[in-house]
Amino acid sequence: MSTLKKFDLSEIPYYKVHGRTIPKIRPLPLFYNGSAVELNVSGCELWVDLEVSWHTLEIWVTIEVNGAPVSRLMLMPGNHSLCLFRGMSPEPVKNVRVTRETQAMTEDEDCCLIVHGFQTDGLFYPVPQGKYTLEFVGDSITSGEGTYGAIGDPDWIPMYMSYSRDYAKMTAEALGADACIISKGGWGVLSGWDNNPNCNIPSRYEQLCGLCCGSKNESLGAFKPYDFSTRETDAVIVNLGTNDASAFLQPAWHDPATGRTFKQRLNPDGTCHKEDLNRFEDAVVSFLHMLRRHNPKAHIVWCYGMLGYELSFAINDAMTRYIRESGDHNVIYLQLPNTTEETVGSNGHPGKLSHERAARVLTEYLRSYLSL
Amino acid sequence: MSTLKKFDLSEIPYYKVHGRTIPKIRPLPLFYNGSAVELNVSGCELWVDLEVSWHTLEIWVTIEVNGAPVSRLMLMPGNHSLCLFRGMSPEPVKNVRVTRETQAMTEDEDCCLIVHGFQTDGLFYPVPQGKYTLEFVGDSITSGEGTYGAIGDPDWIPMYMSYSRDYAKMTAEALGADACIISKGGWGVLSGWDNNPNCNIPSRYEQLCGLCCGSKNESLGAFKPYDFSTRETDAVIVNLGTNDASAFLQPAWHDPATGRTFKQRLNPDGTCHKEDLNRFEDAVVSFLHMLRRHNPKAHIVWCYGMLGYELSFAINDAMTRYIRESGDHNVIYLQLPNTTEETVGSNGHPGKLSHERAARVLTEYLRSYLSL
Amino acid sequence: MSTLKKFDLSEIPYYKVHGRTIPKIRPLPLFYNGSAVELNVSGCELWVDLEVSWHTLEIWVTIEVNGAPVSRLMLMPGNHSLCLFRGMSPEPVKNVRVTRETQAMTEDEDCCLIVHGFQTDGLFYPVPQGKYTLEFVGDSITSGEGTYGAIGDPDWIPMYMSYSRDYAKMTAEALGADACIISKGGWGVLSGWDNNPNCNIPSRYEQLCGLCCGSKNESLGAFKPYDFSTRETDAVIVNLGTNDASAFLQPAWHDPATGRTFKQRLNPDGTCHKEDLNRFEDAVVSFLHMLRRHNPKAHIVWCYGMLGYELSFAINDAMTRYIRESGDHNVIYLQLPNTTEETVGSNGHPGKLSHERAARVLTEYLRSYLSL
Amino acid sequence: MSTLKKFDLSEIPYYKVHGRTIPKIRPLPLFYNGSAVELNVSGCELWVDLEVSWHTLEIWVTIEVNGAPVSRLMLMPGNHSLCLFRGMSPEPVKNVRVTRETQAMTEDEDCCLIVHGFQTDGLFYPVPQGKYTLEFVGDSITSGEGTYGAIGDPDWIPMYMSYSRDYAKMTAEALGADACIISKGGWGVLSGWDNNPNCNIPSRYEQLCGLCCGSKNESLGAFKPYDFSTRETDAVIVNLGTNDASAFLQPAWHDPATGRTFKQRLNPDGTCHKEDLNRFEDAVVSFLHMLRRHNPKAHIVWCYGMLGYELSFAINDAMTRYIRESGDHNVIYLQLPNTTEETVGSNGHPGKLSHERAARVLTEYLRSYLSL
Repeated sequence: MSTLKKFDLSEIPYYKVHGRTIPKIRPLPLFYNGSAVELNVSGCELWVDLEVSWHTLEIWVTIEVNGAPVSRLMLMPGNHSLCLFRGMSPEPVKNVRVTRETQAMTEDEDCCLIVHGFQTDGLFYPVPQGKYTLEFVGDSITSGEGTYGAIGDPDWIPMYMSYSRDYAKMTAEALGADACIISKGGWGVLSGWDNNPNCNIPSRYEQLCGLCCGSKNESLGAFKPYDFSTRETDAVIVNLGTNDASAFLQPAWHDPATGRTFKQRLNPDGTCHKEDLNRFEDAVVSFLHMLRRHNPKAHIVWCYGMLGYELSFAINDAMTRYIRESGDHNVIYLQLPNTTEETVGSNGHPGKLSHERAARVLTEYLRSYLSL
Repeated sequence: MSTLKKFDLSEIPYYKVHGRTIPKIRPLPLFYNGSAVELNVSGCELWVDLEVSWHTLEIWVTIEVNGAPVSRLMLMPGNHSLCLFRGMSPEPVKNVRVTRETQAMTEDEDCCLIVHGFQTDGLFYPVPQGKYTLEFVGDSITSGEGTYGAIGDPDWIPMYMSYSRDYAKMTAEALGADACIISKGGWGVLSGWDNNPNCNIPSRYEQLCGLCCGSKNESLGAFKPYDFSTRETDAVIVNLGTNDASAFLQPAWHDPATGRTFKQRLNPDGTCHKEDLNRFEDAVVSFLHMLRRHNPKAHIVWCYGMLGYELSFAINDAMTRYIRESGDHNVIYLQLPNTTEETVGSNGHPGKLSHERAARVLTEYLRSYLSL
Repeated sequence: MSTLKKFDLSEIPYYKVHGRTIPKIRPLPLFYNGSAVELNVSGCELWVDLEVSWHTLEIWVTIEVNGAPVSRLMLMPGNHSLCLFRGMSPEPVKNVRVTRETQAMTEDEDCCLIVHGFQTDGLFYPVPQGKYTLEFVGDSITSGEGTYGAIGDPDWIPMYMSYSRDYAKMTAEALGADACIISKGGWGVLSGWDNNPNCNIPSRYEQLCGLCCGSKNESLGAFKPYDFSTRETDAVIVNLGTNDASAFLQPAWHDPATGRTFKQRLNPDGTCHKEDLNRFEDAVVSFLHMLRRHNPKAHIVWCYGMLGYELSFAINDAMTRYIRESGDHNVIYLQLPNTTEETVGSNGHPGKLSHERAARVLTEYLRSYLSL
Repeated sequence: MSTLKKFDLSEIPYYKVHGRTIPKIRPLPLFYNGSAVELNVSGCELWVDLEVSWHTLEIWVTIEVNGAPVSRLMLMPGNHSLCLFRGMSPEPVKNVRVTRETQAMTEDEDCCLIVHGFQTDGLFYPVPQGKYTLEFVGDSITSGEGTYGAIGDPDWIPMYMSYSRDYAKMTAEALGADACIISKGGWGVLSGWDNNPNCNIPSRYEQLCGLCCGSKNESLGAFKPYDFSTRETDAVIVNLGTNDASAFLQPAWHDPATGRTFKQRLNPDGTCHKEDLNRFEDAVVSFLHMLRRHNPKAHIVWCYGMLGYELSFAINDAMTRYIRESGDHNVIYLQLPNTTEETVGSNGHPGKLSHERAARVLTEYLRSYLSL
């Protein structure tokens, strides 16, 4: 290991960043699950220098070598040099990716993963862009909640979240695309699963990463407007509505600070209250306009169904209204197979098999669309 | 074979008829694909006495013994005694089903399959009803077109249609349900694939079998109003819209007799003309009312997607309108995975693998619904 | 159908015969399961003219069009014109195969299937040879016993035998090879499952088809020496030993005619009696010499295991002895996965899933060997 | 984390050790891949205290929670407290296993993994024994070489070895059995892949762990005779012969220290030299006697084939000789499906899919045997 040379990111000629980022930012924060740094590098050995902080919700990462996953581990707070490979033949160029496995956390203001640099005895080579750029906007499903852990395990813990078994990763890989994830468990289009109206993704979508918190993340630029011009997205895949459906079944949310109350109501016959359903649909329509504004050429695919079809008609109705208002037909509704006893993971969420099945439907659809 | 005894249907104490029928009708016409006669019978040997007629489009049947398919064959016109099994151990009771494999044919007025009786050396035993009754209303997909024949084979022939590889059969078997099929290739909700407005399923739905023709079928009661009270349907699965989508892409249909013309129009930008889309949606709304009138307790599942998602928004919009008009929420829209190069069959239609995949989504949905 | 022209085989310029046959024999007997006649033909319609005879054990055939199975049916005794397809587009050349589904029958001296000719409105085209020629020598497993019929069905009937779900067919198709089957249920290398020493395959192997009986088959040349020079076999796959293992567990066989008795004995501790095991091994060694004599260049693959591994050591020991005696190393022992509850078919025999699994192992082995 | 209590192993009432060990040894060395410590524990959080040492070949471990794999990571030398889970609901009892992923290493005398204790805020509960005890004796296949890493990756590195994707783990889990592995890549029954006659597993089989080296391992008792009486093994699965086959193709091995040379020779015609083959067979016979001596009641299953069938006849011949010499019939030869392009992993070794396929054959065989 004595021959390893330490490189600050600024000294590395080629590396590729996955996920929303600021071009050339150094050091490099990885905000979302799926956010990653990818290298092509020769040499026998490679280490990454990471800065990790969190208070209650730990961060996990995965390591892939030549496209094959080799490691998945929890990171303790502190500065770490993490070995990515060692003992390999020096000449061949290895493709290596270090990926944040766990979602952005609004619950832990210290939660932060920063890449400072690498150490290696090899040389760096260019990393090509993907054939397409896909953006995935979602909730716990897209945060891979339940993709690890035993069926029946009830805990909401970072260990059971992932990008590595996420339909977004599977879809992007099958299409040779780069994926960009913006997701947060429990959040919806209008409100969170518990009727908290602050937990709506659209309100944070325009920030680089509005789904974390704290001064450290702020100092890294997380809350600044995201510059959508840095990349052109081929398709935006929205997978939202599941928590909005949940809100109809949950008690009202009370804001102790303001005294404000919020509740999506059910009628006595079990159907959704018309006004509240309209409120949800308005939020969908509005979000579609926002998505289109920032992604003028992207195909917008609204996916739904992996945890039930409750708001299927409402989403379609909103999409139809959006199309009528905008004349924009570059949108589609794609129902994904519901999760079953055979495909469920931990904490009642879609397991790996459910994500594989969803990814197949989505991949087939996008392959057909993108090849036109 | 000398010990075989010939039984007219009227002499057989127990047999079960699958598909729309008139209770105790003798001889027994099998109008639709999936229409069948099922026996529990002991003895070494069993034959069925059939009357077969057709002019251009031949009839196929399948034979199942104890639930396992053993034979699939083309029937020539004439009266046939067809051996269903022979040489078996006499004591065990065998479950045997003879099923019409090919759809009702409006193109051949002679096309007709009639069961007269059976010959056996065994005894007849009761045949239990299924756990549920499912009605499938569809087009070529539900008529199993393309489920036989090589991929790439372009011919529209009865040999390539089936019930034996149909998602309807797979779904019914997985749920332990009885299936009842009303389907005809090329037909739609508003018009046929070629804009022929006569080829709409709703106009024939209320007849016992409005999807065949000719005086022979008439004499068998095919065109009489179907008596919906003879069975209570648990779920009506509609799989229509694919030919309505096709009509937008096809030339206008001209009726040489009346001079009438019909055409679902596309706008110059490739979207559907609003008036024509409304016309389609009106037909969907109207059909939903009809279905509910005749099946007051049935869950109505509108399936769509096995050959493209083009009218997905329109169907949802129509269903939302129907719900608003009727207050009836006992309906759902279920998108089925599109057919791909890997799952296609002959003549560009869904192959066995596509039907299996659709059946899985539908089965999972119905299992969950029916277990509530 | 008025435009159909009737062709005697002698008038047809191109057709291909599968299975052991006499070159240019007319009419064409199909002796074994898998024996078939294959055509490339244009036209709308095609019929085959068959002569069928049997007394107790009926004959089944399958029909394939462009490689896709479309029909499987029982044939009654008599002369039949059987429609293979109709209503197809006239120009494209269709590949059609009519295949005997049921094995040669020593139990029914009338059992005989003869092809006389075809009727069509099309033209005949050449049919290419397969890339390789494979000969399969076996027992009920290779006769596809149990590949049809429900799990648990106990009957030994032709309806449950097949070539269409046989590992031999699957293997040949995967390799683009022509298959030739010599098999008979219940027979072994040394004796039948019931210790009948006459039921040994080697004693009939050198005849064209020694596994049928009766004067009609005799008149068709069935019992004449097979001319091994008519084709060069690339691999001989032997799948025998299962009935020889059974013989150790069955009572002695008594020949009422001669008073002769035959029994493969078990020791009190459940192991096989050494002398009798040697007798079996001698038969294997001797059969290997016979196979090599007639197939000088063929790779000999002795498969075993689909119904248990009991004689695995004995077969290996005999093969090792054969190699030592002959210096011939062009032989291999290939163990196939045993049949389980998940893969069993009717009558306790390997089902379709077991055949698929065996075919995969065998195909992989042969693909690797043949590509050297 | 302030409430965590540190427990030395001696203070923990219940924990289960997987793999060869000395009862109650503290601290606990984990010598082999698959060697593990398993706990049932309540509480929110659990850490393991490990002592790790190696010089050139790093050690990997995996973590499973409630039977689901959650982490796989490389361990650096030093004393580590590794978090196994955190943030979980305190009451439920979690099953946790920390497993050594990489094989014993004769190449690195420092290579050593020792468990000192655990830290938790929970309580310990009994861990039941498996239904059966299985011992797996093998080479690189059983060491899981190639089960991680990209197809085509040529490196021999610990990162690409595993227990987590090993057929041994899959088989044991499917049967509810405890597995015990003794394996080392490159080693054979008679010699290593490179003709090194010291690299033979039988010479080390009787030691607790003869497949590591160095004074530290010696001080942990690795080279002491293993006490076979500590557990009764139900089946010994031997998967050896692959490197012995390789030796016939490799150059002679020269021992620079003694000047000794060793070579398994091929004849000019490519067959194995009879004397050398006998030498191999003698080694197999002798090893079978050794296995039986130490495992008097175990069913001995000699598996072979995952990387070619070359010595299949020789292994069978040796087994037959062993049976004749010993009268012991409690042995079987089980051929496993060869690895193909579809199932290969990195470094030309069986990948996960090949291990799954092998495990299925082996599991089915053992399930049937063990249920007798």
